[in-house]
Order: sequence, then C-alpha cells, then structure tokens
Amino acid sequence: MSAQGGHAVEKLDETANVISASKVTGTSVYSTDGDLLGEINDVMLDKRSGKIAYAVLSFGGLLGIGERYHPLPWATLKYDTRQGGYVVGLTLERLQGAPTFGAGEHPAWGDRAYEARIHDYYKTAPYWGA
Amino acid sequence: MSAQGGHAVEKLDETANVISASKVTGTSVYSTDGDLLGEINDVMLDKRSGKIAYAVLSFGGLLGIGERYHPLPWATLKYDTRQGGYVVGLTLERLQGAPTFGAGEHPAWGDRAYEARIHDYYKTAPYWGA
Repeated sequence: MSAQGGHAVEKLDETANVISASKVTGTSVYSTDGDLLGEINDVMLDKRSGKIAYAVLSFGGLLGIGERYHPLPWATLKYDTRQGGYVVGLTLERLQGAPTFGAGEHPAWGDRAYEARIHDYYKTAPYWGA
Repeated sequence: MSAQGGHAVEKLDETANVISASKVTGTSVYSTDGDLLGEINDVMLDKRSGKIAYAVLSFGGLLGIGERYHPLPWATLKYDTRQGGYVVGLTLERLQGAPTFGAGEHPAWGDRAYEARIHDYYKTAPYWGA
C-alpha cells in the first residue's frame, strides 16, 4: 500500500471519496502560480473528533533555509490531475509567511490558540468546528 | 517523523489530542481478551468531509490464512498505555467474522452500502454522519 504503486495498488489506496494517508504522504504541493512548494510529509489526526487536522507540507530546502514544515488545513488541498499534485490557494510569497516549525521543534497540536492562528492564516474554518 | 522515534520525535508526532498518521501506522492492535490481532497498516481518509474513515488492521498471517486487511472504524480504537497499542472492543472470534479484504482485492471505499456493513458489524455510527 505504498504511495507510488501500480494500478491495483492505486485502487486499494483511493476511490473518488476516500484516500489512504500513505498515498497522501509524498504527494507534491504547488502554489496557485504553479510553483512546486514541496510535498506532504505526514497527516495529523484529531483523536477524539475523528477529523483530519492537518496535512504537513515539507519544504525540502527549496528556499535555502533548511527544511521547514507547514501545517496545512485539510480543506486547503485541492488535487489537480494535470499537475499530479495538490494545489493550495496561495502564492509562494504568502506561504513564506505562514506558520511553520522546524525538525527539532514541537508544534502545539491540539492547542486551540496555536491552531486558530493556522486556520486564520489560511482563512479556513477550524477542523474542530468552532 | 517516523512512528518509532525518540522523545523529540514523539512530541512532534503526538499530543493529547492530535496524532500523526505515520505514528498510528505500525501500532499493535489487541482484542478485549488481550490477543495480539495485528497492526495498523494504513489510515483511510474521507476527502470531502475531512473525516477519518478507517484504520486498516493487517493480520500478518496470525490465523494462517495469508494476510487479510480489516477496515476498523476510527471510533473502535482505544489506546491502552499498558499494552502499548490499540484495543478494539471485540474478541478474536468476533474479528474473524468481520469484513476483510485481501492484498489483491479492491474494497469499495466510499460506497455507502459496503461501508454501512462495516459500521454495522462494529456497532459504530458511520463516519459520514448518517
């Protein structure tokens, strides 16, 4: 059930409505201008509500500042079949100002004040339904 | 951000409310009687609603019938710190009669009739809120 498999694996991993976390992980992410921003590193899940909290975008040193992780609200990701990846509705410049964390940092997952800043930045409704 | 990391990685991967899909994957699953059933192979996500659809339990040939996959409604998984894994509220015998698919099969993810049978079996409310 890896992300890049053959036809049979694709079917196991995804239908029109449902996709596996392992298939989301590793998928490329593009800006509205078509810039390759990076790829999905992991998916964060809210235990109690059963909601998808974030897809974590990793910048693989594209900006020359070491790898940074951007928590993206799930609703920001639109799959683009032509690009073969997700497109987020913001420019590279806008993403550079978004909340991030580094490899050694501990994001306050589940802290509503921290998470509200993320959702505010991307102008999406909080996953916890506030 | 792998599942089995040190302390710092643990913190990045999980808080009281939020956990990464990569950390869920590979976690052991036990029956109510303490039998080791297998481990979580992947997590299925509902694209539109942003809900976690299933955690897929793989039976690693424990029953001697080749690897089988059990889609478990997210709500069935309770983490048990003593066992160091998830406990599902059913016995090994009960799990043997649950809906499964094999490595070459294509489960009808997103097909409500197929999925309703899964939720009925585990007596959990459907993730899509029906």
